[in-house]
Amino acid sequence: MRFKQWDGFESGQWTDEVDVRGFIQQNYTPYTGDDSFLKGPTENTTKLWDMVMALTKKERDAGGVLDVDTDVPSTITSHAPGYLDKNLEKVVGVQTDQPFKRALMPWGGINMAVQANESYGFTVSDRVKEIFTKYRKTHNQGVFDAYTPDMRKIRKSHIVTGLPDAYGRGRIIGDYRRLALYGSNFLIEQKIHDASLIDGEMTEEKIRLREEITEQILALKDITKMAASYGFDVSQPAANAVEAFNFTYLAYLAAIKQNNGAAESFGRTATFLDIYVERDLNNGTLTEEEAQELVDHLVMKLRMVKFARTPAYNEIFSGDPVWATESIGGMGIDGRTLVTKNSFRYIHTLSNMGPSPEPNLTILWSQSLPEGFKEFCANYSILYSSMQYENDDIMRVTHGDDYAIACCVSPMQVGKQMQFFGARTNLAKTLLYAINGGIDEISKEQVSPRFEPIQTGDDAMNFDEVWAKFDNMMSWVADKYVNTLNVIHYMHDKYYYESAEMCFYDTNVYRFFATGIAGLSVVADSLSAIKYAKVFPVRDENGVVVSYRTEGDFPKYGNDDDRVDSLAKEVVKVFMDKVRSHKTYRDSHATLSVLTITSNVVYGKSTGDTPCGRRYPEAFAPGANPMHGRDCSGAVASMASVSKLPFKHAADGISNTFSVIPNALGKDDDMVIQGDFSVSGEIPEDAKIK
Amino acid sequence: MRFKQWDGFESGQWTDEVDVRGFIQQNYTPYTGDDSFLKGPTENTTKLWDMVMALTKKERDAGGVLDVDTDVPSTITSHAPGYLDKNLEKVVGVQTDQPFKRALMPWGGINMAVQANESYGFTVSDRVKEIFTKYRKTHNQGVFDAYTPDMRKIRKSHIVTGLPDAYGRGRIIGDYRRLALYGSNFLIEQKIHDASLIDGEMTEEKIRLREEITEQILALKDITKMAASYGFDVSQPAANAVEAFNFTYLAYLAAIKQNNGAAESFGRTATFLDIYVERDLNNGTLTEEEAQELVDHLVMKLRMVKFARTPAYNEIFSGDPVWATESIGGMGIDGRTLVTKNSFRYIHTLSNMGPSPEPNLTILWSQSLPEGFKEFCANYSILYSSMQYENDDIMRVTHGDDYAIACCVSPMQVGKQMQFFGARTNLAKTLLYAINGGIDEISKEQVSPRFEPIQTGDDAMNFDEVWAKFDNMMSWVADKYVNTLNVIHYMHDKYYYESAEMCFYDTNVYRFFATGIAGLSVVADSLSAIKYAKVFPVRDENGVVVSYRTEGDFPKYGNDDDRVDSLAKEVVKVFMDKVRSHKTYRDSHATLSVLTITSNVVYGKSTGDTPCGRRYPEAFAPGANPMHGRDCSGAVASMASVSKLPFKHAADGISNTFSVIPNALGKDDDMVIQGDFSVSGEIPEDAKIK
Repeated sequence: MRFKQWDGFESGQWTDEVDVRGFIQQNYTPYTGDDSFLKGPTENTTKLWDMVMALTKKERDAGGVLDVDTDVPSTITSHAPGYLDKNLEKVVGVQTDQPFKRALMPWGGINMAVQANESYGFTVSDRVKEIFTKYRKTHNQGVFDAYTPDMRKIRKSHIVTGLPDAYGRGRIIGDYRRLALYGSNFLIEQKIHDASLIDGEMTEEKIRLREEITEQILALKDITKMAASYGFDVSQPAANAVEAFNFTYLAYLAAIKQNNGAAESFGRTATFLDIYVERDLNNGTLTEEEAQELVDHLVMKLRMVKFARTPAYNEIFSGDPVWATESIGGMGIDGRTLVTKNSFRYIHTLSNMGPSPEPNLTILWSQSLPEGFKEFCANYSILYSSMQYENDDIMRVTHGDDYAIACCVSPMQVGKQMQFFGARTNLAKTLLYAINGGIDEISKEQVSPRFEPIQTGDDAMNFDEVWAKFDNMMSWVADKYVNTLNVIHYMHDKYYYESAEMCFYDTNVYRFFATGIAGLSVVADSLSAIKYAKVFPVRDENGVVVSYRTEGDFPKYGNDDDRVDSLAKEVVKVFMDKVRSHKTYRDSHATLSVLTITSNVVYGKSTGDTPCGRRYPEAFAPGANPMHGRDCSGAVASMASVSKLPFKHAADGISNTFSVIPNALGKDDDMVIQGDFSVSGEIPEDAKIK
Repeated sequence: MRFKQWDGFESGQWTDEVDVRGFIQQNYTPYTGDDSFLKGPTENTTKLWDMVMALTKKERDAGGVLDVDTDVPSTITSHAPGYLDKNLEKVVGVQTDQPFKRALMPWGGINMAVQANESYGFTVSDRVKEIFTKYRKTHNQGVFDAYTPDMRKIRKSHIVTGLPDAYGRGRIIGDYRRLALYGSNFLIEQKIHDASLIDGEMTEEKIRLREEITEQILALKDITKMAASYGFDVSQPAANAVEAFNFTYLAYLAAIKQNNGAAESFGRTATFLDIYVERDLNNGTLTEEEAQELVDHLVMKLRMVKFARTPAYNEIFSGDPVWATESIGGMGIDGRTLVTKNSFRYIHTLSNMGPSPEPNLTILWSQSLPEGFKEFCANYSILYSSMQYENDDIMRVTHGDDYAIACCVSPMQVGKQMQFFGARTNLAKTLLYAINGGIDEISKEQVSPRFEPIQTGDDAMNFDEVWAKFDNMMSWVADKYVNTLNVIHYMHDKYYYESAEMCFYDTNVYRFFATGIAGLSVVADSLSAIKYAKVFPVRDENGVVVSYRTEGDFPKYGNDDDRVDSLAKEVVKVFMDKVRSHKTYRDSHATLSVLTITSNVVYGKSTGDTPCGRRYPEAFAPGANPMHGRDCSGAVASMASVSKLPFKHAADGISNTFSVIPNALGKDDDMVIQGDFSVSGEIPEDAKIK
């Protein structure tokens, strides 16, 4: 073995070059038992968590932000170490030199950073303002320097929303486990080797990549320095569980010190770290109590991740989520479950420290998961309403068994695939533009070129005509949308490159170009109303259609009715094809998501009345959900509609937020279960059975 | 007419869109008379020039640099106005807030800026060092982040030298006349229009260009602010000669406040400005004395341009030249001469203020130039040894009649063509590498991959073998050279974009990729020696050829002998073809120059003994010159050899530095004429006659 830290591990390909999955497959211990081995919190854990809760209260009392750095732009090495209580913490590291002190991140946009500070009563120093206006151009400035007038228009009119053009794009999951398994010296060696392969004719692509590798190597060196300040030598592999937990977290910490991405997910670490725990348990150098304490402290740190956001950002995202998503469980492609005792321990933090939205604990659900784990998850979902489910059986087909979820639904192979995050197009609004020939139903401005509006006057709208015009308008918006994203990601690479994340990726990374849509159920129901009922336009004094009057009933999405569900399917496929028809930055692979869990309220506020009967400013349904109250055929029928959406054409994921009232399941109990229930493509068979 | 400032001008296409040449052609007054109209310096001119001379002495006494800004990175608007004497100056503006105070320019490379300061006893502030290491990456850092090991090797071994990877590349001539003719508002309008044409599928090329246009517009706005601080409103066209001179100079000043390029040429302004002078003379609002004073003050400002360079830079360039080249005269494609009275006035500054290397007054020589102007140039060359000649009859064919010379020999259409400056490959050293299979004859390191060295042992070298190996080595070095330049220019655009120059260019600029070679005469003579005499290698203890012993005589380049001149021609063509075979950044058009006027000494210092009999560290001949003393068949024969070099394959220009001793021309006089005599492709017929 190359490193003594690997003693006790079975060797293989992973010992010669970076291959974390290979290491896991050769060394992990599947666990098919129940939760009886779990331990409660240690005294230290409770003390520390009380401190976190006290700080949380202080933060809330202070108006939402306790402290922000106003003069030191955050880099991997910008701050001295910070602690809750140095003597009690088993997993160390905070984003600045104090817990709950948010970092200053002007690289995405200095105005955003200034506004974020000001909205909480802080003032960014003149020094930093000067540097990031006179000397250091930001991602935001770069984007706006290149936007076309059309791009500004689709952004301003909210037909496309949430574009990552003033903050970090996120949705990149560094394989932080690599630091624990290999240490930074080995990773640097590999990067130098990778660079040596990029030679010959120096195209711009090669030049950029060579520069990026140098930035990655610099990041690895900086991470080594930063970790040293916390007392860990990460230049070598982790020697035990304590080091493995800390190395993995410190690698992630570097990422969130450098970048304020819209989703900064943690990856899929439980089973990996379980291997270290098992070795130490077997060595007698660790007890179950200590193992749980490590997990609790790691998760506590993930719960403490915070960014300084603007009120506008918080409105779009209904808060300031981090989406420090950890993907748990799933099955291996060899048939063994990837559930380990650590999978239980991660979820058990909900008991030891109480429920929490972060980290976003995401179960990779398979029909084949061990029954003990299934029961455990079900119980904890009932108890804490803090878990998310994703369909491993679907995703494993295309992504293998070492993928993780970025944000809420985006699957990517850890350290091998990333995405260019694309927020989403408001398809409900796109339908209204089609009806009005591109005039915005709220601002009354002509946003698209003047397309022909519907020609049926005040008569009931004609489905074929509306569909044809909708198709046309989808073409227009998809074109502008994709090209806006091309600008954003070019500039993000140029001005806000995520070296602290990409250094934990393979050099030849596979890139998704992740577009998204919002308002799918509104569109499906609206099209259904036009097709199966009579929908009469209501016009303002200038002839702009501003509302709709409906005669008769029509099938509604969410009732397992193919007449309308097929419309939803068709819209997804057609829009995805329009996205596909365009050139995407860095030859990335276009995908689409049907999201979002949190922004449905703000979408409603920027979309006029819709033909389905929804009235401005009523919220959309979240993600791929049916509109609230229209799915009146029971939970299974509701989910069946969603499950018809084709994963092939929505490969970035499909989200269904599901609140289970026991009655819906045919039982009689006053308990209410709530939580995010996200599926990719199909409902897990188990869920249908239940 | 759109602007009242244009009253008295003949309108045409140029009134609707940017077309300076069109304006010139429709409005200029050719002058075919003699120099009798010229006036001496005004009292103010003499006072001001005395101040410049006094400052020059102070500067020399201070060790070469009088003052440097150590804390304010230079931008268009970074400094308050500076004057020699505000009341006396007719043309205003210096690079910082004081004449002879050099600007701090860290964008190209912070280390270079720090070293430049330190070598003259100044210290760059910690603030600036921090900004340009932590927050603002420099061009130099970008380049070294992407260089391959081979690129570092060719640089370190000096087989390729003078690469612009730590300072501004220069060789870009903004059409500064545009500011005078149109004013910045009109130019901004045009740029906004240009941007509107870059739409549709957002490729990286389009995104970059859109961002660049935004930077150009910002530069135009900054220039307007900077000019206002000097009391000129450049948002509108210049209303008279005083404004036209100042606007044109202030536009150039913006360029040299932003960029420290290796050559910052002024363009071709004399005839353009003559139109304003003529209008004012005819209006009675200007006298000849005042016209000459304007020219003198403009030229005085060009003489005061200074950059903070490092000693290493100064060694390569034998000083710290600016190459503020102004191209004068030439013929129009309609047959009229482009000589005006102002052409005389510019040259007359040599009399009014004494000789000076800057601005690099460059005569675009044609057989058809008016006799009066020819006589005048000849007289002033004899008197002041400060003029350069270029062959307009050759260049006009490919470049039309509104081109100018960048640096010493590079022709480009003003405002329409730019170049990516490429310094040069040392072909003499390349020949030595071919003989030794890529081992450096000085460091003894293997620089190229191990090619087969010559196989003739200690016997006389075989021409065919040496040529084949030389061809092979040229392929290798051309590959590395072109790709190194690809990296440099990618990074220059990324980290040190010349918005203050490019804002005075057409948006769709034509780009040359200007490579170069040094040591041509050494190579030609060495190949000739191997072919026509017997050259025996002299090896060191490891068998590396370190010198040569020659038996017999051989033809030498510079004597109009086709046996050797054809070798020089062939080398130029073959190397150019090897350059052509590669991809060049931004699809630029590859060219080649046979330079340099100033670096021949330093090339000699880095090149071992050569087969022609030259001994280390003897200097090379400059540019395309024959080796000193070997051209023993008279001046005309010497120039005839140079004139055989094909302009088609050396389209970036061919330089011949020529010191004329009267004896060489068959006269008897003890006067010595010295000066740069640069030709492009052929010797002007006139020169041959004389």
